[in-house]
Amino acid sequence: MKTKKIVLPDSELPRQWYNIVADMPTKPLPLLHPGTKEPVTKELMNRIFVEELVNQEMSEERYIDIPDEVQDKYKIWRCTPMVRATELEKALDLPAGIKIYFKNESVSPAGSHKPNSAVPQAYYAAKQGLNRMTTETGGGQWGSAMAMAAEMFGLDLRIYMVKVSYEQKPYRKLMMNTWGADVFASPSDTTDAGRAILAANPNDGGSLGTAISEAVEMVMKNPDARYCLGSVMNHVILHQTIIGEESMRQLEMAGDYPDVVIGCFGGGSNFGGIAYPFLRENLVNGRKTRLIAAEPTCCPKLTRGEFQYDFGDVAGFTPLIPMFTLGHGFHPADIHAGGLRYHGAGTTASQLLRDGLFEAVDIDQVESLAAGVLFAKTEGIIPAPESTHAICAAINEAQAAKEAGEERTILFNLSGHGVIDLYAYEQYLSGALKNYELSDAEIAKTVSVLEKLV
Amino acid sequence: MKTKKIVLPDSELPRQWYNIVADMPTKPLPLLHPGTKEPVTKELMNRIFVEELVNQEMSEERYIDIPDEVQDKYKIWRCTPMVRATELEKALDLPAGIKIYFKNESVSPAGSHKPNSAVPQAYYAAKQGLNRMTTETGGGQWGSAMAMAAEMFGLDLRIYMVKVSYEQKPYRKLMMNTWGADVFASPSDTTDAGRAILAANPNDGGSLGTAISEAVEMVMKNPDARYCLGSVMNHVILHQTIIGEESMRQLEMAGDYPDVVIGCFGGGSNFGGIAYPFLRENLVNGRKTRLIAAEPTCCPKLTRGEFQYDFGDVAGFTPLIPMFTLGHGFHPADIHAGGLRYHGAGTTASQLLRDGLFEAVDIDQVESLAAGVLFAKTEGIIPAPESTHAICAAINEAQAAKEAGEERTILFNLSGHGVIDLYAYEQYLSGALKNYELSDAEIAKTVSVLEKLV
Repeated sequence: MKTKKIVLPDSELPRQWYNIVADMPTKPLPLLHPGTKEPVTKELMNRIFVEELVNQEMSEERYIDIPDEVQDKYKIWRCTPMVRATELEKALDLPAGIKIYFKNESVSPAGSHKPNSAVPQAYYAAKQGLNRMTTETGGGQWGSAMAMAAEMFGLDLRIYMVKVSYEQKPYRKLMMNTWGADVFASPSDTTDAGRAILAANPNDGGSLGTAISEAVEMVMKNPDARYCLGSVMNHVILHQTIIGEESMRQLEMAGDYPDVVIGCFGGGSNFGGIAYPFLRENLVNGRKTRLIAAEPTCCPKLTRGEFQYDFGDVAGFTPLIPMFTLGHGFHPADIHAGGLRYHGAGTTASQLLRDGLFEAVDIDQVESLAAGVLFAKTEGIIPAPESTHAICAAINEAQAAKEAGEERTILFNLSGHGVIDLYAYEQYLSGALKNYELSDAEIAKTVSVLEKLV
Repeated sequence: MKTKKIVLPDSELPRQWYNIVADMPTKPLPLLHPGTKEPVTKELMNRIFVEELVNQEMSEERYIDIPDEVQDKYKIWRCTPMVRATELEKALDLPAGIKIYFKNESVSPAGSHKPNSAVPQAYYAAKQGLNRMTTETGGGQWGSAMAMAAEMFGLDLRIYMVKVSYEQKPYRKLMMNTWGADVFASPSDTTDAGRAILAANPNDGGSLGTAISEAVEMVMKNPDARYCLGSVMNHVILHQTIIGEESMRQLEMAGDYPDVVIGCFGGGSNFGGIAYPFLRENLVNGRKTRLIAAEPTCCPKLTRGEFQYDFGDVAGFTPLIPMFTLGHGFHPADIHAGGLRYHGAGTTASQLLRDGLFEAVDIDQVESLAAGVLFAKTEGIIPAPESTHAICAAINEAQAAKEAGEERTILFNLSGHGVIDLYAYEQYLSGALKNYELSDAEIAKTVSVLEKLV
């Protein structure tokens, strides 16, 4: 019987997350206070974030234990399956030496990899004795994951959801409500920041930047609340490394090791999650796996951005973060892969890219949706619009290997399913979906501002 | 490390389906031609259905081999996980001797158990050299599963979707389109039946009965097409028994055997799928597992219907089927569990119930949604509105055992997730969801007609 899928029993669930900072040849630069330009203090961080997460954010320990309580929740859906994309391989008419595997993170209750970090974030918050968290969400993947996790650990959660998404994605909002979270369309009348924006323009559709501002303001006004987020920061990527650790064990069971590992790239959480454990093997054990981040052509921070200190939000309320960025004032086109529409890359990914330790490619949205439809028709699963970028990059790698007459084992991260985000497919199938050109001048407009920051 | 979840490797995928007919103390009565009242001929059946499926429909073989090509597709998501509902148990404060397990069929690409039958149906159609299938769908679970399967085996698929659902559930339609199926709102202008209804009332919202009529008419006019459906018939339930076969192996690995097995009940496919292998153990090996079908209070064919010959559709185009029925003219209230709004039960389930070999309970929709929300908040997964009926029945069993001071191992089938059917939850959370009373007189209205049929 041919093996299609490699599963791991509960007993094989990884007991530790992997912290890439321990093995980075160049350590990431510190976050800076925007006023003083000095590294931000742990005290300030602790006021905004959960203490244990701040510890993890600043840790250089190679491995960090996964608490038993978190493992118990992980086991609802983890270990996730490793699947050989046999049907996709057939459709691409690949020779036997070219193999495509995918790690199926879509089987979580929230439909994506996001609960991998949401669950520990909620756990540490509850352990600290907090009872309220706030966060923001754009497309809704993170918000729904955090809603589930907060409910599991008895926390109240307030979510500021970008108003445009709130209106366009009622199912995402309903998921969060079902898990008991309070969801506010941002800008809202619950914060000074929101009220000021609404006063200027009652029809403002919101942005991730505004939603972050509202979530942080709410925390600053409520001493028993903390803010949390689903990508960019070290501790988030840390939690996601369970994806790569499981993948390595599963491929070992299949007698394989990847030549290429691919993830789509928004802030870096699903890419780092699958890639960093393999990067460790490159750095520590001399492996030579190529790691590829697939970003959308219209938000090309990795391929066309600059490495600079920049704000994490549009309004400029966060610390200054050392990142590959298009500038915090950059407005990406309104593509369907909402999770990839972020102006900057996380600190570890940015430093690693600067040091040439992974590659980045840009993918057009029409090409990526076409890959998503091919995947749905062969492997059955309808992928999230974000994940289609990784699928497309994997197909490109397979075809390049075929043309070069080389063998290649390709692994990509299927970060989520798309059945709650189907309008992307409707637009693609009707021929209405289009790509967006981005000129150097447009990028220069928001990047050129950065030099004034530090 | 506590075991939360039992997974099976690909190598453990069952190689055979189980046919309950082989072990039934009373064999099911034959389907009758409505004109002659004689058993329908195989020739007529073969004109409408795929030949191999007709063979399976009439087979009394105990086990039927699962073709390799079907196993290959099953392995995309099967074996599905068996999960101990530890977090739900905690919320219910159950003593150690009362355990709740659930079989998680929600992890399929279509989000439910329906692909278990859709895949072999498409496979046998392609093997017969057919290139076109038609089917109908109400809520969309079956239609989306069949769309995926048809695409996998290169078949064109035409789906008649009840117009009300077509308009209320755009995501379901989009799933089918993404997998390449043509979806028509029924009544449509593509058939005589549809045109006649539209001529009488252009605003007719459709019904499953009308959709079946359109799908069958299309088949009768196209010699290379066949009709397929997702429940009620023996061959469909046969394919679903892979759920129960896997469950038995998984519970054996956990050192457990169920005292009670529960499934929600529409036509009988997910209930029979999980229950029949355990019923075999009762009949053949003297086990005493209680099997419970959970139906909605407003469509109580098992608890309040009559065992009679009745049509499978509202218009009266199908053969006469021996079933527990509320009458083919019965119009259930417009509850959210669309998959449970069918007037009759499948032939094997009907005979087995008549012989007292399983139990049936009725569950109100508000109570069932409350159970669904509790499940989502504890076990993470937002269940399909249909599946909440099984969850509710499982909770009731657990609480009854607790009150009686008894030990009990309960297994239920989580037939699907609910993230594409979230309006049920919105209505529940807002307090707008209500139960429906059904008087004996209302049932008598459509049941009393039946006596004239045979």
